[in-house]
Amino acid sequence: MRGVDPAWLPDEVFRPIGTRRTVIRGSGPLVDTVYGELAEACARYGGGVSREPGPHDLLLELSGSGDSEEFTYELGAGGTTVTASGARGLLYGFFHVVRLGEEAFLGEPVRETHRPAVGLRMLDHWDNVAVHPVMGQVERGYAGGSLFWEDGRARGDLERVAAYGRLLASCGINAVAVNNVNVHAVEARLLTDRIGEVAELAGVFRAYGIRTHLSVTFAAPIVLGGLATADPLDPEVRAWWAAATARVYEAIPDFGGYVVKADSEGQPGPFAYGRSHADGANMLAAALEPYGGTVHWRAFVYDHHQDWRDRTTDRARAAYDHFTPLDGEFAANAVLQVKHGPMDFQVREPVSPLIGAMPGTRLAVELQATQEYTGQQRHVCWLGPMWSEVLRFEPEEGSSVGELARGGLVAVSNVGDDPFWTGHPLAQANLYTFARLAWRPDADVGGILDEWIGLTFGSEAAAGVRAVMAGSWRTYEKYTAPLGVGFMVQPGHHYGPSVDGYEYSPWGTYHFADRDGVGVDRSVASGTGYAGQYGKRWAEVYETVASCPDELLLFFHHVPYGHVLKSGKTVIQHIYDTHFEGVEEVEQAQREWASSAGVVDPVRHARVAGLFEEQLRSAREWRDQINSYFFRKSGVADERGRTIY
Amino acid sequence: MRGVDPAWLPDEVFRPIGTRRTVIRGSGPLVDTVYGELAEACARYGGGVSREPGPHDLLLELSGSGDSEEFTYELGAGGTTVTASGARGLLYGFFHVVRLGEEAFLGEPVRETHRPAVGLRMLDHWDNVAVHPVMGQVERGYAGGSLFWEDGRARGDLERVAAYGRLLASCGINAVAVNNVNVHAVEARLLTDRIGEVAELAGVFRAYGIRTHLSVTFAAPIVLGGLATADPLDPEVRAWWAAATARVYEAIPDFGGYVVKADSEGQPGPFAYGRSHADGANMLAAALEPYGGTVHWRAFVYDHHQDWRDRTTDRARAAYDHFTPLDGEFAANAVLQVKHGPMDFQVREPVSPLIGAMPGTRLAVELQATQEYTGQQRHVCWLGPMWSEVLRFEPEEGSSVGELARGGLVAVSNVGDDPFWTGHPLAQANLYTFARLAWRPDADVGGILDEWIGLTFGSEAAAGVRAVMAGSWRTYEKYTAPLGVGFMVQPGHHYGPSVDGYEYSPWGTYHFADRDGVGVDRSVASGTGYAGQYGKRWAEVYETVASCPDELLLFFHHVPYGHVLKSGKTVIQHIYDTHFEGVEEVEQAQREWASSAGVVDPVRHARVAGLFEEQLRSAREWRDQINSYFFRKSGVADERGRTIY
Repeated sequence: MRGVDPAWLPDEVFRPIGTRRTVIRGSGPLVDTVYGELAEACARYGGGVSREPGPHDLLLELSGSGDSEEFTYELGAGGTTVTASGARGLLYGFFHVVRLGEEAFLGEPVRETHRPAVGLRMLDHWDNVAVHPVMGQVERGYAGGSLFWEDGRARGDLERVAAYGRLLASCGINAVAVNNVNVHAVEARLLTDRIGEVAELAGVFRAYGIRTHLSVTFAAPIVLGGLATADPLDPEVRAWWAAATARVYEAIPDFGGYVVKADSEGQPGPFAYGRSHADGANMLAAALEPYGGTVHWRAFVYDHHQDWRDRTTDRARAAYDHFTPLDGEFAANAVLQVKHGPMDFQVREPVSPLIGAMPGTRLAVELQATQEYTGQQRHVCWLGPMWSEVLRFEPEEGSSVGELARGGLVAVSNVGDDPFWTGHPLAQANLYTFARLAWRPDADVGGILDEWIGLTFGSEAAAGVRAVMAGSWRTYEKYTAPLGVGFMVQPGHHYGPSVDGYEYSPWGTYHFADRDGVGVDRSVASGTGYAGQYGKRWAEVYETVASCPDELLLFFHHVPYGHVLKSGKTVIQHIYDTHFEGVEEVEQAQREWASSAGVVDPVRHARVAGLFEEQLRSAREWRDQINSYFFRKSGVADERGRTIY
Repeated sequence: MRGVDPAWLPDEVFRPIGTRRTVIRGSGPLVDTVYGELAEACARYGGGVSREPGPHDLLLELSGSGDSEEFTYELGAGGTTVTASGARGLLYGFFHVVRLGEEAFLGEPVRETHRPAVGLRMLDHWDNVAVHPVMGQVERGYAGGSLFWEDGRARGDLERVAAYGRLLASCGINAVAVNNVNVHAVEARLLTDRIGEVAELAGVFRAYGIRTHLSVTFAAPIVLGGLATADPLDPEVRAWWAAATARVYEAIPDFGGYVVKADSEGQPGPFAYGRSHADGANMLAAALEPYGGTVHWRAFVYDHHQDWRDRTTDRARAAYDHFTPLDGEFAANAVLQVKHGPMDFQVREPVSPLIGAMPGTRLAVELQATQEYTGQQRHVCWLGPMWSEVLRFEPEEGSSVGELARGGLVAVSNVGDDPFWTGHPLAQANLYTFARLAWRPDADVGGILDEWIGLTFGSEAAAGVRAVMAGSWRTYEKYTAPLGVGFMVQPGHHYGPSVDGYEYSPWGTYHFADRDGVGVDRSVASGTGYAGQYGKRWAEVYETVASCPDELLLFFHHVPYGHVLKSGKTVIQHIYDTHFEGVEEVEQAQREWASSAGVVDPVRHARVAGLFEEQLRSAREWRDQINSYFFRKSGVADERGRTIY
């Protein structure tokens, strides 16, 4: 598409296919999509594609009509073959060949069957239809406007949506929620009289094997239906949802389902009627069930009017406390969607103790691709290593988060109508990495980065780009809030440091720094008891200062500045050292990027170079505010005598 | 006017006049205004008014046609007489009689001549024509929308503006600026093609002796005139302003002049052209001079992109540093408008050292009636005592601020389209007090409060209302930022506490609290040198910790928490004590107000009672955040063992 960055699908990656002969067998919309890709590549590079048997280098064969996403890839004497019993499998097999490039034709003989480890791989878009006066067109969006909506209505031209669907299909995403979980007045109507706009988007996504989901307001029976209540056990309410859902499926036969943020940060929910979240979710599940739809019910429920004086309340405990008593009560097509950490997408959090604690409930795990707390797509911060750590974490031995996410892996999208899709061109890697991890949560994340770099930049730039990106999450962690304590950000927009910005707020996000020490005591013995929400293994690890990992120490414990970490450094010296190092690493990355000038497309290079100026300014601001704050409080000088203001 | 609070002019105060016979002599619009007031009062209460000689209790006589605002009031054997050589004098004399009530007829014989000590008594309205996306219809307005503008245009119905003009005339205001000093795109056009809207307002105000002023953008020649420059020495620019000003005076022959915020917080100004503020102001003065107009040039010029790491820059110094070198260079009709303190309307600041330091320049002193930093009209905070202290302050012995304000006294307005005019009904007192102090800066401010209470509430409620209001400024000071340190507010909206909210910001507003002490060293010996901007007398007082008054100690000095104040308390104990006391005083005031229930109009009583809930909540939040912050930093326990979180 003209004027839009090709991201990881530049023409060049279709050359190996485009120069060869392909036979494609089977029929249906997704086969047509693959055929179209092949035809375009061959037109560009001189190869050929046919739907009839004949000589070929590549055979793509749809052998059935099921829903399977599996495909078998074989490179043998007779050429390269992809076979799949379901159309999505063929689509994913095709893009597998694209990713392999020449290797798919020239490599060693091989026969592999691929299937996604996670059935639902979803992007949630926090896009508003009408521009919100505070949050704008895309809530927590850092890449321009919405791809779907503009100033109160659906975009007329859906070419960009199709280009987006293609990018997603190429890395295995199969579900998209098209509007913000905070459902405002205009957006509420997408469910009813404006469902046609959603259907248009669904039509575009369908061609890429992607089902469309919708965020709805729990209060819809009142605000749209004119009923007096939204009580989930009220027969009229249930009938209203059933009828509304029937009309949705008339418009979108393969509609994915609803996403609901209820009783959360001011959104309405079942608590108003003395009902449980299971009651609420199950009502919607019942409405969706006849059509094979799913409700994604978010577990982000906590008291956001907390009194900072009250040390007994701990926001980190909230999801577990609210939801574990309901285990076993959720319908089969109700998925509880849990943020990966107990707080809110900080650069470092422990894994939510809810994951693994509800064996009788389908859980989806929600990650955040949009960099709300990780540099807002002005900083390079490749989140792959963090997500990989989360997904490999084993709440109980032998059972990882990736395996426990039976209800899906979901990411909050980081795209917008920015020409580079994600604002910062290197933030595209987060979208790609999420998708690939959702396919295979135990994948080597470094390999995913290399794959993305290879597709996006080609081989010549690879080493330089990798040097800039591979360690960027840890670099970001170094120059921001230390040792897992989190939330030292400017209130509201969440960009840049403000150590005390949330310290006396109602949001439940505190660090309790005083002249002697810092951190939140979440132990069972003397703190909020949060550590005890984990299974025995991790509860014991997190319970004591001695066993708690350094990187989460201040999340779980309040310690003196002179406390010696496992690293051998004191807490205060660790703070100083990491903040100086973090800025040095940004400077180093900036130099590295500058040296890639000759091997990276100049427009992309210039944009990243420009953003590095801001990242460095911001990193220095973080360094100096954090260091000054803790120096003023602790009175402890830096061992190395560096400048602290 | 129906549906609008009568404020200090309820019908009842016109009873003494309305039951008597008045003869009024003279002609002209202001005489007509007074006649109209008399006719209405007499229609209500049965008295009589005549323009012909005859038997009377009150004679109002306009004896000339000058501009004098003076009047002579006499109570003698022949009745009560007011004579004035100028129409405004007659207007003010009439309202003098109204204020006196029965005393004007039954008191002891007396003959007094009254004249205002300050020629220009002005209200600046920070009203936007178009609703600003962040600042709203009225910038720093806490009383609803604008009286003048609504959603991008002038209000059609000007009845409310007339009621407002009447209130202002009754306490001696003679000038109003009708739009925000931050002049945005829509507002800029008031100067040119939309001057007709201003003329309509001016027509209403004219009947109350009030001249209308306009805030203009220094960039007008570019943004409105299409010129390439706004350089004040450019002949084309000068010609553009001359022509624009001529058209203004065609529309409004008695137009007061321009108000300009230049090179301030992002507004354009002469610095862009390498010109001085005198060059800028004098250009506008030259355009206004043929018509008797004045330019009010604000001295609020400072670096709002300051680096908090830089301890050598001091925002408090900025106005003095920028403007004193220009003394003697400003035209006779250019007035330099100086905020009363060096920072920005904090609850406690020293008097700006600029006042008294520019003997060759006409200065206006700007106060802030709108309670931006003093409770935003949700807290009772009667500012009279603060203003009185400021106006009586003598930069050099024998010469007070009130006397040095030769260019006028200006207040940023606190009114809006709220039914009570000012949101909090008791905030009306700030408007009234400002006006009466502007007439006579050395007036006994307690007497002004009594006068306002008497007019507004009558005698029965007087003691109770006085008890709630008289000490309210000191109460507010107690529970907010201590000892003159200022600016511990939430960034942006400025409501509620945030001790570090501005501590690392570019706005130049710091307290430098660390584990050992707090405050800003502005001494000459070891600090920013700000104390040396005062004349010898005050420079010496402020220079040392020993001589600096307690209430400004942290404004001028950084001291340890254990420093013993003149009061005998340590700084830290003073912080704890005042914050507990402040909240107790709010609780006491709330009880006092509750006990006035029977003697105050129920609607007004209920609104104030409701606001006390919020004031108490907010005061407790201030107390607890400030106390916790300093306890966490200092580690010093409260001597009295009260709860600090």
